[in-house]
Amino acid sequence: MESQLQTAVVGATGYAGFELARLLGRHPRLAKPLLFTREAAGSKDLTDFYPQVLGNGQLRLQPFDWQKLSEGNVELLFLATPHETSREWVPEAMQRGMKVIDLSGAWRLKNTAHRQVYAFHDADSAAAQQVSDAAVYGLPELRSQQISGSQLVANPGCYATSIIVALAPLVRAGIIDRSAGIICDSKSGVSGAGKQPTPTTHFVEVADNLSAYAVFTHRHLGEILEQLELDETELTFTPHLLPIPRGILSTIYVRLEQCMTAVEIESIYAQFYANRPWVRVFGTRLPQIRYSLQTNYCDVGFNLSSDGKRMVIVSCLDNLMKGAAGQVVHNMNVMFGFGEKEGLN
Amino acid sequence: MESQLQTAVVGATGYAGFELARLLGRHPRLAKPLLFTREAAGSKDLTDFYPQVLGNGQLRLQPFDWQKLSEGNVELLFLATPHETSREWVPEAMQRGMKVIDLSGAWRLKNTAHRQVYAFHDADSAAAQQVSDAAVYGLPELRSQQISGSQLVANPGCYATSIIVALAPLVRAGIIDRSAGIICDSKSGVSGAGKQPTPTTHFVEVADNLSAYAVFTHRHLGEILEQLELDETELTFTPHLLPIPRGILSTIYVRLEQCMTAVEIESIYAQFYANRPWVRVFGTRLPQIRYSLQTNYCDVGFNLSSDGKRMVIVSCLDNLMKGAAGQVVHNMNVMFGFGEKEGLN
Amino acid sequence: MESQLQTAVVGATGYAGFELARLLGRHPRLAKPLLFTREAAGSKDLTDFYPQVLGNGQLRLQPFDWQKLSEGNVELLFLATPHETSREWVPEAMQRGMKVIDLSGAWRLKNTAHRQVYAFHDADSAAAQQVSDAAVYGLPELRSQQISGSQLVANPGCYATSIIVALAPLVRAGIIDRSAGIICDSKSGVSGAGKQPTPTTHFVEVADNLSAYAVFTHRHLGEILEQLELDETELTFTPHLLPIPRGILSTIYVRLEQCMTAVEIESIYAQFYANRPWVRVFGTRLPQIRYSLQTNYCDVGFNLSSDGKRMVIVSCLDNLMKGAAGQVVHNMNVMFGFGEKEGLN
Amino acid sequence: MESQLQTAVVGATGYAGFELARLLGRHPRLAKPLLFTREAAGSKDLTDFYPQVLGNGQLRLQPFDWQKLSEGNVELLFLATPHETSREWVPEAMQRGMKVIDLSGAWRLKNTAHRQVYAFHDADSAAAQQVSDAAVYGLPELRSQQISGSQLVANPGCYATSIIVALAPLVRAGIIDRSAGIICDSKSGVSGAGKQPTPTTHFVEVADNLSAYAVFTHRHLGEILEQLELDETELTFTPHLLPIPRGILSTIYVRLEQCMTAVEIESIYAQFYANRPWVRVFGTRLPQIRYSLQTNYCDVGFNLSSDGKRMVIVSCLDNLMKGAAGQVVHNMNVMFGFGEKEGLN
Repeated sequence: MESQLQTAVVGATGYAGFELARLLGRHPRLAKPLLFTREAAGSKDLTDFYPQVLGNGQLRLQPFDWQKLSEGNVELLFLATPHETSREWVPEAMQRGMKVIDLSGAWRLKNTAHRQVYAFHDADSAAAQQVSDAAVYGLPELRSQQISGSQLVANPGCYATSIIVALAPLVRAGIIDRSAGIICDSKSGVSGAGKQPTPTTHFVEVADNLSAYAVFTHRHLGEILEQLELDETELTFTPHLLPIPRGILSTIYVRLEQCMTAVEIESIYAQFYANRPWVRVFGTRLPQIRYSLQTNYCDVGFNLSSDGKRMVIVSCLDNLMKGAAGQVVHNMNVMFGFGEKEGLN
Repeated sequence: MESQLQTAVVGATGYAGFELARLLGRHPRLAKPLLFTREAAGSKDLTDFYPQVLGNGQLRLQPFDWQKLSEGNVELLFLATPHETSREWVPEAMQRGMKVIDLSGAWRLKNTAHRQVYAFHDADSAAAQQVSDAAVYGLPELRSQQISGSQLVANPGCYATSIIVALAPLVRAGIIDRSAGIICDSKSGVSGAGKQPTPTTHFVEVADNLSAYAVFTHRHLGEILEQLELDETELTFTPHLLPIPRGILSTIYVRLEQCMTAVEIESIYAQFYANRPWVRVFGTRLPQIRYSLQTNYCDVGFNLSSDGKRMVIVSCLDNLMKGAAGQVVHNMNVMFGFGEKEGLN
Repeated sequence: MESQLQTAVVGATGYAGFELARLLGRHPRLAKPLLFTREAAGSKDLTDFYPQVLGNGQLRLQPFDWQKLSEGNVELLFLATPHETSREWVPEAMQRGMKVIDLSGAWRLKNTAHRQVYAFHDADSAAAQQVSDAAVYGLPELRSQQISGSQLVANPGCYATSIIVALAPLVRAGIIDRSAGIICDSKSGVSGAGKQPTPTTHFVEVADNLSAYAVFTHRHLGEILEQLELDETELTFTPHLLPIPRGILSTIYVRLEQCMTAVEIESIYAQFYANRPWVRVFGTRLPQIRYSLQTNYCDVGFNLSSDGKRMVIVSCLDNLMKGAAGQVVHNMNVMFGFGEKEGLN
Repeated sequence: MESQLQTAVVGATGYAGFELARLLGRHPRLAKPLLFTREAAGSKDLTDFYPQVLGNGQLRLQPFDWQKLSEGNVELLFLATPHETSREWVPEAMQRGMKVIDLSGAWRLKNTAHRQVYAFHDADSAAAQQVSDAAVYGLPELRSQQISGSQLVANPGCYATSIIVALAPLVRAGIIDRSAGIICDSKSGVSGAGKQPTPTTHFVEVADNLSAYAVFTHRHLGEILEQLELDETELTFTPHLLPIPRGILSTIYVRLEQCMTAVEIESIYAQFYANRPWVRVFGTRLPQIRYSLQTNYCDVGFNLSSDGKRMVIVSCLDNLMKGAAGQVVHNMNVMFGFGEKEGLN
């Protein structure tokens, strides 16, 4: 049997970190991953936080410590940490020779103006800029070649993934009338807001409700614009908080440069995502959130107006899978030459 | 004490009909309403269907019968019936001298092309056209004068109300760049789909899910276009089914003809809805669905892009209140010269 | 017009406090209530916390201050405050001559052993004991005479209300075989856990879930035993957290001393709750949570085993109404000789 | 590679049948299963009903036909069909030499009195009695030896599984005071009610609600009594409908013959379920529904009263996995000598 890749997760008790720990634990190419938390408290077990994984063997949690990474010969480090923590730890990990996949927004943006929304403490440092230049935006459907050769992958935002997957084939094909503006109306389950209890995530505030937030100002907007190479005025993005635990549905509105048929549109998607195992092209049947829950798929469908000039695209994914941990595993598979579907079925 | 208006509800066991029966039972200007069902079965009580109203006195349900309307001296008839039933019964009720408020889509549309989506059996009849000409679209914020003098009010659709209330002030003010298109992304609770059990309303299909439906083809589109005097290509409307029992949130995207400030926009709304008790203008604070649940309010808020050219409007209401039974009572209040808030607090 | 009672609420921004403020604002016998928070921050409006009450006039919130109570000539003080706060403020308010209805568990228990679960800081003080002796347990169906003459009413716990209402008629009638034990399996919506965000109330932890907690140790157990005059070994109470915002359903199991018929049982309930407007006796039809939502009713139904020896009772109420704020208003009505239904329809 | 078992599912479009089809499709010992529906309509694909399995290859659905079973050399037939259908088809399948696992209640009961609740059309036939005698109740934790030698396994009811797993170790150990009665208060998600849309499963009726039903009369009561060898008067079972898609939690109340400690109780469970991979003994930590969702585990925990005489047991499972399709696979594994965990991770 060939040697197994040694990995480590920091932040394994958060929603995305836990999902990642679960996926890594089942991945056929990996040694048992090391699991870390940022808390200083003594060793615990992942089952203390997530009893659902009882029966899967010991899943020891340790306080994070560079020394233990070295001793464990960790080759690939996953950071499911807050933005500022990732700004600090990613450069350190790279200096220590590890490859890194970072789940935060710390290293996703190339454009200085877009980065301002994060107000990083080290925004202007040359060292940070060097790391930023090395980072590859980890959407395998767009950048698999770069990912395979990179030391640092910035895993995309959940909303951004649902929107970029839906729009990239059309933008690349040049069929969208950008002057009319692209509208992205996205709705997300609550796990996207993280595990920290806040007034926003209190059950009584979320249940029986729907709310829009961060209109014109959400942090994922910059990623979307950069990856699709659009100007800020060309795309409007509104996220909403849904009363469900997980899942994202984005409804996207575009005008076409000229009349097109559904067959033509479907063909553009089908060609773009041929041999891409984690995008399902639904054609004119529209996906629903539950179709992709617990899977790593991003599902895309669309409808055309009768005059063939206006188009509504619906894109769905599980924000903890294709929107976070599943895409992380996909990125790892590409980085290390594993099969794209390994560990994700 | 002055004489009390005698009313009757047909379809009192549906969600909107029941909500209406409840409101009428508390209205200070009304005699006890007669309650009818379309089923032929013998007399029952509304509490057999809705035990929640136990303790509010007898609420007898009768099979519908024109004779009983006459005997009861009903002056105002409410039809919470399917479209085709309303097509048949409204003309009959008018001939018998009653005033009618119809909750269905039967008489809302003036434009023949828009009506085709309903495929009415009597679409081409001159008699039907005459009734249609007499019908007033019952959005009191737009047409209170016509409503007060009418014999037939067509109560608006729930989605349509949320969108027209949000857009009418802006369209009338002429500030929208229509050439870029107006996008209306609406999300509704399940009671909007009616009480009939279907695969679509099964709990397991709706819970933990979100789905778009009837893209480009929903029946409320025609009402919206007519009331706002827009062409079909100028507005795109996508409804979604939310995993909540009631409530609608519409997120509406417009481009402005020229840059504007939030103060200017808020002032347009405030003036338009001055002295309109059932629209709450939130300004740049965005309403959420739960703010208007169990009330007759339509809440409207908005955000502007930093360049003042793009605008996102959020509009919320309770689909069984302002979106149905509450607006019916509001229309009745206007028709009969009662206070606009009577029976709705 | 006769003079109106001046009241004040402390803790108006919590779930129960807000519900109370809403009810008081509509009560025909009351002057506009003063609303206080325990926070030191400057004046705000209740609509800052609950936009749903926009349009109901100004609802000014003030930091709590004894001076303002005096200046406002407050006759009746409502405390929707934590247990320890109520332990401190109730004696003070009584000394200042106000009547008090306290929503916390601070003054509900007569039995010292039962009180230990709260670990009150002043548990042993003579002064506290004197207040405790003066307190009346505010379940109007059991103690309306005492309530009407009291200066201090301890408003019952939500779970306790649902269980005592269901059991009191049977216990008083002496038909229960206590030696077999009484089982109370209760399920509550999340608002019962309060507005403070905690891991327990995070949407993702509650949705799609059910959990039992505080088995054998819940604070309401003492109240239930005291009001029903049972020994600890005679009754087992297990609360559960339901994925709904509000509402309680208690399923209660008893063995009967001898075989009985449903007619006999229903008659016991009907006689006990004759002229009690806020208990609805359902007989052998079982109530559901949604029947009593947004109302002040406690609904009670039951089923008998075919041999007439075992009985399952189902009791439902809205934990913020009959389980909290509605019962507070009911208690006030009894205290001040208002009609029992006033302000609660 | 050794030969693969050929199976077929009838009723693959129902919730349990679909879950089973999914599990079988991933099972390492099986050939691709044949999938049948009871509908006469032409061939379809499972993805027409469940788009979530798109991308898993063709999943052809055929109208049921004995001929196709023969041609396909089906050795093991799964019936996810209504009770009466299973009464008819199981004997036929057995005559044709197939082994059968039946998911319905048709063949679970040995006691004639218990069977009356189903009102089987062939209740009195000798042929039916012969099949009934051959049927093994498929709870592998109790009857693995019988299952391994049987031709017909009657897969247990979902509620029954949660209750029997929780009680069997205690009943067998003889520590329960049966004279006081055992109370089983169970709560189930809506998928347990099946896929057919009914007023009971309408989203608006279920959401924000909880209801008890079939008190003293639920069909699973007989199974529970038979498997635990209890008299009807010794156990009371009340099911409730929870506003969640899947999952069961049973809260079970027993009195003990004599005082015991938690350590003693936990030891009884641990010994009983030693080497049983699909029961997780939680000790005094209580399981919650979400811990076992999407798994084949039945989780059991308990609390003792301070005097060691009363016990509350909490048992959880996923009604479509351990409560249906997962247990079916477990039974198949036992029947054919596969590993107990194969195909279930």
